[in-house]
Amino acid sequence: MESFEVRTVGHSEFREITREVQAVVAKSGVKRGHAIVYIPHTTAGITINENADPTVRSDMLESLEKMVPWEQPHFKHGEGNSAAHIKASMMGFSATVFVEQGKLVLGTWQGIYLCEFDGPRARKVHVRVCKD
Amino acid sequence: MESFEVRTVGHSEFREITREVQAVVAKSGVKRGHAIVYIPHTTAGITINENADPTVRSDMLESLEKMVPWEQPHFKHGEGNSAAHIKASMMGFSATVFVEQGKLVLGTWQGIYLCEFDGPRARKVHVRVCKD
Amino acid sequence: MESFEVRTVGHSEFREITREVQAVVAKSGVKRGHAIVYIPHTTAGITINENADPTVRSDMLESLEKMVPWEQPHFKHGEGNSAAHIKASMMGFSATVFVEQGKLVLGTWQGIYLCEFDGPRARKVHVRVCKD
Repeated sequence: MESFEVRTVGHSEFREITREVQAVVAKSGVKRGHAIVYIPHTTAGITINENADPTVRSDMLESLEKMVPWEQPHFKHGEGNSAAHIKASMMGFSATVFVEQGKLVLGTWQGIYLCEFDGPRARKVHVRVCKD
Repeated sequence: MESFEVRTVGHSEFREITREVQAVVAKSGVKRGHAIVYIPHTTAGITINENADPTVRSDMLESLEKMVPWEQPHFKHGEGNSAAHIKASMMGFSATVFVEQGKLVLGTWQGIYLCEFDGPRARKVHVRVCKD
Repeated sequence: MESFEVRTVGHSEFREITREVQAVVAKSGVKRGHAIVYIPHTTAGITINENADPTVRSDMLESLEKMVPWEQPHFKHGEGNSAAHIKASMMGFSATVFVEQGKLVLGTWQGIYLCEFDGPRARKVHVRVCKD
């Protein structure tokens, strides 16, 4: 298991981590198998999505904010960040991506993203590369 | 890693792919382990859900459409399919299912679904079967 | 593959199952690898989230209920539990957590949760521990 740190800059942010994950795959020496990317937090998640047009990410963040408004009359959690917890569970805490010839098998438009929902913060990401 | 293609027919569609995944498991010869199903797209996802009453799927699609309307005033992405990107991330891009005695260990009512959110299109699905 | 049963008590409930999963990891004897937690149902899911303040879970359940109301005019599924199917797909049906030195590698505030959306019911959970 390898880990790296990401310092997010916005309150909500989709930060691409494909390069960092690929570096762990390269270091592992595994040519064929799958990489599991895991985030050990509860107000940030992991997803895969488009790595070309950045408006996809901003549209996604705004739409998630509409679905899960930051302030909701029923919220009781003292820290006031329940919305971040829900969004993180909606995106999930891990992604699995296949590895062939030592490279992540991502679709043409796919990138791996850390989803920050209560930043800016220093976040950790764990990666394990499994050999077939 | 094995791949197969699915041609979706609707704009939004939950297409069952359990049989195709089971065929890859059979071909692999793995009797005990787990299958990872992965979709290399950004406007289609993978989920598991009920394979009996088809109204479950249509109810789910309509409810997702209510949560994430196709047109939203803040959307800036030129292709106009940001809603599909969000829904795909909500469902996720992979599913892991255990294999025992060469068969997928699914619950009584579970099927594996490709979730099309911007079809109709030709979609690829990758499957890897890991041996214990 | 090991399985255990959970009897949920509420209609909607986030029930922590970290201890049960850790027990399967211990029993497996695997010191380093990853555990896959899988739920073979279609109206209950698996997620990871905060295990400290219980209001996080109640806030999440209420917010999910706002996003996916139990009654929606377009619902056609005869059992009347389509909302539970959607929420389960939003949370997902499995979680993968790394194992080091025989212990689940969870973040400080992370716990593993069975997400009941149509209870109370007796639910099964399957766990497989993969060795590196």
